[in-house]
Formats: sequence, C-alpha cells, structure tokens
Amino acid sequence: MANSAWSEKILALLRRMNNFYLPGSGRAACYRFEIDGAQVGWIPPDVASLLTRYPEVFSPPQGGAVSLCRSLDSYGKRSEAVDAVLQTLRQDSSLTCLRGWRDEKYSVMPKFSDPPLMWMERAATCLFGVKRYGVHINGYTVSDSGEVSMWLARRSPHKQTYPGLLDNVAAGGLAAGVGIKHTLVKECQEEACIPAAIAEKAHPVTTVSYTYEDEEGVFAESQFVFDLELPLEFKPKVGDGEVQDFYLLPIDKVKELLSTDDFKPNSAMVVLDFLIRHSFIEPDTEPCYQEFVAGLHQTLE
Amino acid sequence: MANSAWSEKILALLRRMNNFYLPGSGRAACYRFEIDGAQVGWIPPDVASLLTRYPEVFSPPQGGAVSLCRSLDSYGKRSEAVDAVLQTLRQDSSLTCLRGWRDEKYSVMPKFSDPPLMWMERAATCLFGVKRYGVHINGYTVSDSGEVSMWLARRSPHKQTYPGLLDNVAAGGLAAGVGIKHTLVKECQEEACIPAAIAEKAHPVTTVSYTYEDEEGVFAESQFVFDLELPLEFKPKVGDGEVQDFYLLPIDKVKELLSTDDFKPNSAMVVLDFLIRHSFIEPDTEPCYQEFVAGLHQTLE
Repeated sequence: MANSAWSEKILALLRRMNNFYLPGSGRAACYRFEIDGAQVGWIPPDVASLLTRYPEVFSPPQGGAVSLCRSLDSYGKRSEAVDAVLQTLRQDSSLTCLRGWRDEKYSVMPKFSDPPLMWMERAATCLFGVKRYGVHINGYTVSDSGEVSMWLARRSPHKQTYPGLLDNVAAGGLAAGVGIKHTLVKECQEEACIPAAIAEKAHPVTTVSYTYEDEEGVFAESQFVFDLELPLEFKPKVGDGEVQDFYLLPIDKVKELLSTDDFKPNSAMVVLDFLIRHSFIEPDTEPCYQEFVAGLHQTLE
Repeated sequence: MANSAWSEKILALLRRMNNFYLPGSGRAACYRFEIDGAQVGWIPPDVASLLTRYPEVFSPPQGGAVSLCRSLDSYGKRSEAVDAVLQTLRQDSSLTCLRGWRDEKYSVMPKFSDPPLMWMERAATCLFGVKRYGVHINGYTVSDSGEVSMWLARRSPHKQTYPGLLDNVAAGGLAAGVGIKHTLVKECQEEACIPAAIAEKAHPVTTVSYTYEDEEGVFAESQFVFDLELPLEFKPKVGDGEVQDFYLLPIDKVKELLSTDDFKPNSAMVVLDFLIRHSFIEPDTEPCYQEFVAGLHQTLE
C-alpha cells in the first residue's frame, strides 16, 4: 500500500526532527561532552576547536571526548567557569545561537533522573548538544455531543524562534530547579491567561523526544506532554506577547495543518502524539502508525 | 535523587526487553537478513551457519548480510522455499524454538507500511530476527466514583511461553493478512469471552516496541495497544484455555505487581504505558518518567 501524501509529510517531519540519528549526520564527527567521565552532550568539531582556547575550563579533545577540567569539581564552579567562557564567546564570535541569549539556566546531567552537574545558559545548550527538557500542553475541548476541538496558538511575529507559526496552547522550557507541573501552570498563565485553577487539572500523559542538528548545533530535547481539557466557555487570551492569537479548530483541520510548514515542528509532534493517543489516527487505516510512534520517542543512549 | 527500588526494577525490565541494543549484545555479530536488498531481520551467526546448507534458498553470508536467493522472486516462492528449509530444520536440529511450531503465518517486510515480501512460520521468526506485530488490550473499569481498576489474566500453566504469569486481559499475534482490529476482536472473544459488541469499543492508543535476544534468537516486536473500558458488571471468562483466571485489581496493586517476576515482560510494558498515559505515574514524582517512555518505544532502524 502506498503511503498517502499526508503520511509522507509526517514521516519527513519526524526524520527531520531526528536527523542526528540518520546515516551521514554530523554525529560521527561530534565529540562526546563529558563531566567526570559521564556523557552529558555532543560537541560539534567547530565548537570543540573554539573551546581549545580555554584550557583552564575544557580539556583538549581526547578519545573522542571533550571534558570539563577535573579541577572544576562542584556544580557552582563548573557553571561559573563555563558561563564565563560563553560570555566571552558571546562578545567576539560568530556563534549565532548566542545572539539569542536568554538568561535562562538549564540543568546539565547525563539523564533526567541524575543530579544536575552544572547549569548552562539555554541559548548555549545546542553548542554542547546538552539535552533540554520542556513542557507542552494540548489544550482541547469536548462538546456536549463528544466532538473534540483543539486550541492552537499562533506565535508572535517577533518571537526569536519560529515566529508566526502555529503552536500548542502553551509550552515552555524547564529551567534549573523548577518543577514540571509548576512550569506548566506558569506557562499557561503567562502565555494563554489560563488561570492556575484550570491549568492544574492538566494530566501528564507522555514525553516526546527527538534530536536534530542544524547549522547552529545539536538539539537533543524531551518534552513532558500534558493534556488539558478546557471548559467550553473558556477562551485563552494573549498574555505575555509571545502569542498573537488563539484558534479553536476541529480535529480534522488540526490534522490537515500538521503536515504543512505552518506548524512549529516539535509542537506538531506533540499534536501528532495527541491524535494517536486519542484514536484520531488508527493503525488499520494509517500504515505508518508504528513508524509515527517510534519517531516521537527517539532518544540518544 | 536516588531512584526507588520500584523504578530500578522497571528500568531493569526495560533494559532486559531491549538488550539487543545494549553495548556487548550479539547485534554486532548478527548478519542482516535481506530480501531483494532490503533488510527484514537479523540472523545470529549460528543460524547463518546452519543456513549455508541450503544454498538454493539462502545466498552465503556476504558483506555482513544473508540474502534470499534472487531466483526466489515472488511472495509465494520465497515463503514456500523458506518453509521447506524450516520443516527440515524442525526435524533434525537442536533449534528449540521450532519445537513450538504453531502453524501461524507471519508477514515479513522491512517496515509495517511496506508490502509483505513473504510469510514465515511464527515460531521461526526469532531465528531471523524478523519483526513480529501483535495486539495487546488493556481492559479496565471506572467506578461511579471514578476509581480505575484493571482486569488482568493469569496465563494457563500449560502455555508454551510464560506459563502461569500475569498478562493483559487479551492479546495475540498479528497473522499474515489479518487486520489489527479484527485480531483484537477475535482475541477478546477467544481468550476472555468478551463479546464483539464490547470489544469493538476498544480504542487504539499507541504501540509498544522492543528488541531482545536470548538463547533462541532475536525478538524484534511491536505491539499495537488498545484501551478497553469494560462495563462494571462485566466479567471476563476463561475461553480457549490459554488463561486460567482473571482478576480485577486496583491500580496501586497492578503497579506493585509490575515490578515483580509474576508478570509476562511485554505485557508489563503495555501496563506501564497505560499507567503513564492515564497519569498514574507523574513526571514530578517519578524521576525515571522519561526513561520509561523511551524504553517503551525502542525500534531498530
């Protein structure tokens, strides 16, 4: 059975968002980024080459790995030493990602269940392929007759990343030391004016994970996904200006939009996962069903 | 934060069920099993060595691959030629898995969305690391106060595989040419006496995928998972004798059993996925949440 044009576009999205795993990707040329012998990321060769200027912070590449110097033996020391390097690189280098400096601290650790070994500025994480975690919320309604519609946000045209594209009703990155549900409630309030009393009813349902590379670096990400059924009479409102508008759309329309370039790619993955979990995509009629699920949960060892 | 004993046992289950991906597994020594240049499985070296006795069916190992002879240029020819070899091996060899011959034909193809290139006896698939697909059903109830309980089966002590262990309310392998929902309805009827009118209300929700190796071969599997809310007054009944008993258990008890050796391993994974999707496991309190989700969806390229 030939795949439909829609299925092919979804497969292409999943491949693009997992391009770091593909044969011929930059992965083979990357150095492991290690702290105390534990891998916490992947460093592209051009970044590794820049880092050799800072031998008091980064040991020179050895055995396929770039390590933090052993003398940096605490969370605080590592974080401050790396931040000082990044502040310098921000001034005088061509690393475009650092122009998007956010003053947001992300935890760095081998796995989410491990204690953080340091924090790192969010905008710099792609230079080190450090895994980033976030929260995405599927906001939806169920009519009296049982029909499901989904609230989507259209991102502000002034956003640093993916301006003007469709997005989940709310989403945000997980800053160092901040809880997942706490982040969810905060983002719901700030981005969509969803009161805490409603946001707290969101249900955690899964994670969506992927790793892609582009000219800026390596993006290894896992999103904690929540479903939030919103009251029929409730309307999200533009909050902190990250969003320009909200739309309530029937599921068929959402599904159609998913395969277009109008969607922020990782948010499209979160919606795809919603469509699968809520049986709007069925395995007997969607031959790529299992490939879709696999593509939503790729993770680096 | 140290992981709880429960989390460690779940991680160990997921590692065991994905041991083919682990460093030091037999994967590096396996040959790719190819049909017309497309990989459809992994053949362990001892099996590859046996197959050299049948040069009219299997080309000798070359470039890390064992291929079907090009002269076998149709679905029918390939299926019959391989079946003849397997019938012979069944008589005179020490391949223990073939003692469990089932006369069940499984489709062989690179991906589920590809047209099948041949069929193969179910019991032989592990010799070729051919991917197997199946259906697992989470049967559960919701009380008037909203409390969720789950129906579990205890497998017959006479089952060929995993006798006497806990299992999903119904499950079964996907035979060549049979639909997924059709298989679900059939298994519900045969194994648990769930009438079609009820079984058809099951919702597809995801797949659970894993690849493990043991002394018999390589087991690459994807299970299509369905949730089925059963009426409170309904009780599954022993049908075709594959099950000895059914239990309705509160979720906390199910969660506790999940980490014991009393559960069929892949069914435990399906239940773990249910607990995550239904928010009985939450990311703020389960540090291994993301690792759990990743471990439920491992797939071979």
